[in-house]
Amino acid sequence: MPKNREVARANLENLYRIFTVPEAPDSTLGAIDQAISDNLTGFLQTHIVALERNLEEIEADFSAAAIPEDPTFVSEYTEFVKEKLVAQSVHTAAPGFIGHMTSALPYFMLPLSRIMTALNQNLVKVETSKAFTPLERQVLAMLHRLVYRGDDAFYGQWIHNSRHALGAFCSGGTIANVTALWVARNRLFAPAGQFRGIAQEGLGRSLKHLGCEGIAILVSRRGHYSFGKAADLLGIGRDNLVMVDTDANNRIDLNLLKQECRRLREENIRPLALVGIAGTTETGNVDPLEAMADLAAELGCHFHVDAAWGGPTLFSDRHRHLLSGISRADSVTIDAHKQLYVPMGAGMVVFKDPTALSAIEHHAAYILRHGSKDLGSHTLEGSRPGKAMLVHAGLSIIGRKGYELLIDLGIERARTFAGMIRQHPGFELTSEPELNILTYRYCPHAVQQTLAGATAEQCGCINAILDQVNQLLQKYQREAGKTFVSRTRLRAAAYGSREITVLRVVLANPLTTDEILSAVLAEQCEIVQQPEIRSLLQRLETLCAEIDAGFRAAAGCF
Amino acid sequence: MPKNREVARANLENLYRIFTVPEAPDSTLGAIDQAISDNLTGFLQTHIVALERNLEEIEADFSAAAIPEDPTFVSEYTEFVKEKLVAQSVHTAAPGFIGHMTSALPYFMLPLSRIMTALNQNLVKVETSKAFTPLERQVLAMLHRLVYRGDDAFYGQWIHNSRHALGAFCSGGTIANVTALWVARNRLFAPAGQFRGIAQEGLGRSLKHLGCEGIAILVSRRGHYSFGKAADLLGIGRDNLVMVDTDANNRIDLNLLKQECRRLREENIRPLALVGIAGTTETGNVDPLEAMADLAAELGCHFHVDAAWGGPTLFSDRHRHLLSGISRADSVTIDAHKQLYVPMGAGMVVFKDPTALSAIEHHAAYILRHGSKDLGSHTLEGSRPGKAMLVHAGLSIIGRKGYELLIDLGIERARTFAGMIRQHPGFELTSEPELNILTYRYCPHAVQQTLAGATAEQCGCINAILDQVNQLLQKYQREAGKTFVSRTRLRAAAYGSREITVLRVVLANPLTTDEILSAVLAEQCEIVQQPEIRSLLQRLETLCAEIDAGFRAAAGCF
Repeated sequence: MPKNREVARANLENLYRIFTVPEAPDSTLGAIDQAISDNLTGFLQTHIVALERNLEEIEADFSAAAIPEDPTFVSEYTEFVKEKLVAQSVHTAAPGFIGHMTSALPYFMLPLSRIMTALNQNLVKVETSKAFTPLERQVLAMLHRLVYRGDDAFYGQWIHNSRHALGAFCSGGTIANVTALWVARNRLFAPAGQFRGIAQEGLGRSLKHLGCEGIAILVSRRGHYSFGKAADLLGIGRDNLVMVDTDANNRIDLNLLKQECRRLREENIRPLALVGIAGTTETGNVDPLEAMADLAAELGCHFHVDAAWGGPTLFSDRHRHLLSGISRADSVTIDAHKQLYVPMGAGMVVFKDPTALSAIEHHAAYILRHGSKDLGSHTLEGSRPGKAMLVHAGLSIIGRKGYELLIDLGIERARTFAGMIRQHPGFELTSEPELNILTYRYCPHAVQQTLAGATAEQCGCINAILDQVNQLLQKYQREAGKTFVSRTRLRAAAYGSREITVLRVVLANPLTTDEILSAVLAEQCEIVQQPEIRSLLQRLETLCAEIDAGFRAAAGCF
Repeated sequence: MPKNREVARANLENLYRIFTVPEAPDSTLGAIDQAISDNLTGFLQTHIVALERNLEEIEADFSAAAIPEDPTFVSEYTEFVKEKLVAQSVHTAAPGFIGHMTSALPYFMLPLSRIMTALNQNLVKVETSKAFTPLERQVLAMLHRLVYRGDDAFYGQWIHNSRHALGAFCSGGTIANVTALWVARNRLFAPAGQFRGIAQEGLGRSLKHLGCEGIAILVSRRGHYSFGKAADLLGIGRDNLVMVDTDANNRIDLNLLKQECRRLREENIRPLALVGIAGTTETGNVDPLEAMADLAAELGCHFHVDAAWGGPTLFSDRHRHLLSGISRADSVTIDAHKQLYVPMGAGMVVFKDPTALSAIEHHAAYILRHGSKDLGSHTLEGSRPGKAMLVHAGLSIIGRKGYELLIDLGIERARTFAGMIRQHPGFELTSEPELNILTYRYCPHAVQQTLAGATAEQCGCINAILDQVNQLLQKYQREAGKTFVSRTRLRAAAYGSREITVLRVVLANPLTTDEILSAVLAEQCEIVQQPEIRSLLQRLETLCAEIDAGFRAAAGCF
C-alpha cells in the first residue's frame, strides 16, 4: 500500500511538472522552437522531406489505435514529430507550391499565435475572452466596412451593440457560407402572425406556411462545394442547389440563370438565395455581381457573395472595380486564412443588415444571456479560439496599402504566367486569369490546331488522352516535391462541353518569382519525357496525324 | 514617375521583409515570445490585469472601423497588444478561475502549437496535409477505441480506409453534435427505392416519403445549447427539440422521456435521436445511458451521447463505470479542448458504425475526389488546421494513465469542495458532484431551514432575494479578479420547480488546490458584507423571521 502510494505521488509530481515546468531551451522541443523563431524558411526547407513517400508507407507510423498506457518523454515524442510528422508534411509555404490557396506566412504571425495560444481565450462569451470580444467585433466591423463602406455613425451605432453583430467569425469559409444561407433561410421563413418561424417550427411546416414545394439556392457551376453541404445540412436538398452553367469566362450565364428562375417558379419552388462568386476556387473568376444583385432584388431573395478568395481584392485601388456590386450583397464571406495571410482556421461572414444575424440568435442560461455582448449567441460554432487577433494584427501591421501591394502583385504575376503559357509551344491556357488564379494544360500547339478543326467525337478522343497526360504530369510533379500545381476538371463550351483535366495555379505567395514560374513549366516539359507520358503523347501524335490527314483529304489537298 | 516607382519599390521591400525576416530576439515581440517560453505562468500573472475594467472602457480601444491605410511597425503593434489586449484578457489558466471549462495548459502544447502554425497544413485534403491525414485518422481511431473498444482487426480494417472515416475532427463540440445529428437525419431518410435520400431531395419531400409530420430530438433539460442550434439548422425546428425534465440528480427522467415518446407517436412525429449527456455542462451529471440505449433500440432511432465534457472519464479505471452504456451509442462527441487539455478549437465526434459518415459524404473535382483519403469529404467544415497533432501529443505524452490521474484528481477535488460547502454555515450545495462539476449558492443554513418548511409562494420570495444575492456575488467576485466562479439558473423539484440562480464550479485545472477552494469561499463571505448585498440579506432575514413566526404560530408556539 505505502509503495503504491509512493508511485502515485511520483506520477502526480510528473504530471504537475508538465503543467508548470517549461521545456528547457536546449531540449529537443526547445531547439525546434528556437529554430522556427530564428529562421522559419530554413526550418521548413531542412525538415520537410521533398521527395514524396507513398501515403501507405506513412500510414504505418500512425496505425496504432490504442492510446498509449504510459506517459512518453516530451523529448522522445518530439523526435517522433520531427522524423515522422514534420518530415512528411507538405511545404505549403514554398514559393513553388502554387497549386493550392496556401502561402508563406508573415513572420509576426508566429509569435502572435503563441500569445493567442498561451492566453487560450474562448470567444463564445465575454467571461472567457474580455478584450478579445471587442477586438473580434472590431475586426468584423473593419471587414464590413471594406465591403459596405458604411460611415462612422453607422459603425459607432453597431460595432459594439449588445443585441447584434455585424458578422460571424468562423473556423473557415464553409461555416461562413453555411451561416449566410442559414440566416437567409430563417429570414425567408420569419415569424409572421400565427407562424412562429422556421427556427421554431421546422422546415416542413414552413414550406406549408409559404405554400411552396421547396426552396432553392442558385449558384454557378464553379460554386464552392460548401454550397452542396449547406443545401444538404439546411434541409433544402441538393436537387434544389441549382448549379447554373457558366459563360466562356467561368462566370454565371445570366440567361441560363433567369431560365432556371422561371423553371423554379413553374415548379413552385421559391428561390432562397442567389450566390455570386468573387473569385471562383478553380479559376478565380468573378460573377457579374451587379446584374445578380438586380435579379435578386427582382426576385426578392437573399443575395450572398462568396468572396472567400477574392474579397481582399477590395484593398486594391486598381482592381477593386472587378468586384463591383459586392456592396449590394446581403452577406459576404471572406476567408482570413487565404488572402489575409492568417494561419489556417479563420473565416468570416458579414451582413449588410446589422440585425440580420438575429434570425439565428440563441441563448443559454449560463452564458449568452439576453443583453450580453457574448459573440456566441450569433455563431454556428460554440467555443472558439481568439483567431480574430491575428486578423487584427494583419490589418494593422500590413495595412490597407500593404494588402493592396500583395493583391496587385498576385494579379500581375498571374498575367505574366498566362503570357508564358501562351507563348510556350507545349501548353494551352484554359482559363484567363481575372484575379490571381489560372488554369492550363499540357497540350502542344500542333494538337491545339488539330482540336480547333476536329469533330466533337475527335475532340473527345484527343481530350481523353490529354486528360491522362495532365493527370500523370501533376502526379509526378507533386511526387518529385520541387514544385506543385493542382489539378481539377472543367467543363467549357470550347471543349465540346465535356469536362477536361486542367492544371490549376494560385499565385498568392509574394515569394513566388517569375523564375520559379519558368521553372514550373520547365519541370513539366521534363516530366512529359518520362516513358509513360511519352507513349501517351505518341498515341496523341498518331491520332492527330490521322485527323489532320482527314482534314486535308476533305479540303482536297490530296 | 521615377519617384513613385522608388516609393513602390521601398514598399515592396518592406513587404518582403515581413515574410522573410524573423522578429529579432531583442524586439518587443521577440521578448514576449521568450517570456512565454521561459515562464508562461509568470507571463500571464504579470501581464493580465486582475482588476476588471468596464467592458465599455475596453471597447474604446477597439472602436475604429476603418482598416488602417498604412503599415504599422510590429514593435508598435506589439505594445498595443500588450497594453490593450493581453492586459485586458481573462486569466483562464489561473487555478482560481474555476467557473468555466478552462484550465492551465501543459507546457509542451505551446512549442508544438508553434510547429503546427509554422507548417500551416490544411487537413481538408492529403495534398496539403500529407502525414497529418493519417495522424488525424489515428487520433479518431484512438478516441473511437476509447469509447467502443474494438479490436486490432477492426481498426486495421477501418483506420486508414479511403472510403470511410471513424469520426470527424471539428473546431469544437457544437460542430461535433451538429455533425452527429446531421448523420442521424440523413440515415433516417436514406435513399430507398424511388426516394433518393434527404441529402438529394430535402426535408420537405423526406417527411412526405416517411409519411410523418416531423422529426424530433429528445434530450434532457440540461442538454447543451448546441442541440437547439442543430434543431434549427437541420430544419427540424426547436419545437421538436424535446427538452425532458430531469430527476433530482439532473439526469433525464426516463418516465417523462417515455411519455414524450408516446406523445410524439400520437402526433405522428418520428423520433430522430435520443441524446444522452455524459457530463452536463452546468452540473456535470451523466444520464442513464444504458436505459437510454435500450429505449433507442426499442424506438429504432439514433442514440447520440454528448460526452464533450465527460468523455475522458473513460480514462479512469475507478470512474469509467459512470459512463456505462456509452459504447452502445451510435455517435459520441468528445471535446479535446476540454479534458484532453488541448488549446481552444478542437472537438471530435466518433461513430460506432465506421460507414455512418457516408450519409454526409461529398466530393469536388479539384479535391475530395472519390477514392482519395482526403478527410474533407466527411466533415462539415472545409479547410481545417492540423489541431489533431496536439491531441496526438497529449495522448502520447500524458498517456492513458496520466489522463486517469487528471480525471481522478478533478472528481476527488469536487467531492472535497462539496464537503466544504456542506459544512459551511453560509452555503448550500445545489447539485452533488458526480464528475468534477458542482453548483452551490450563498444561502445561510438558517434560510435553508426556513425554506424547508415554507410554502411554494414563500419559497418563491426567498429564492428571488437569494437569486439577487448570488448574481451580485458572482459579479463582484469576477470584477475583483482574484478568483472566479460562473453562474447559471437551474430548475429543480427541490426549489418548487422554479429556476434558481446558482454558482457553478468546474474543477479540471490540476493546479487548483484545496487552499484555493477555501479561499474562493472565504472571498465570497467577504463579498456578501458589501452594502448592496448586505441590505438584501437583511431583507431576507426579516422575511425569514416572519415566515418562521408563522410556523411557530401554526405549530401553536405562541
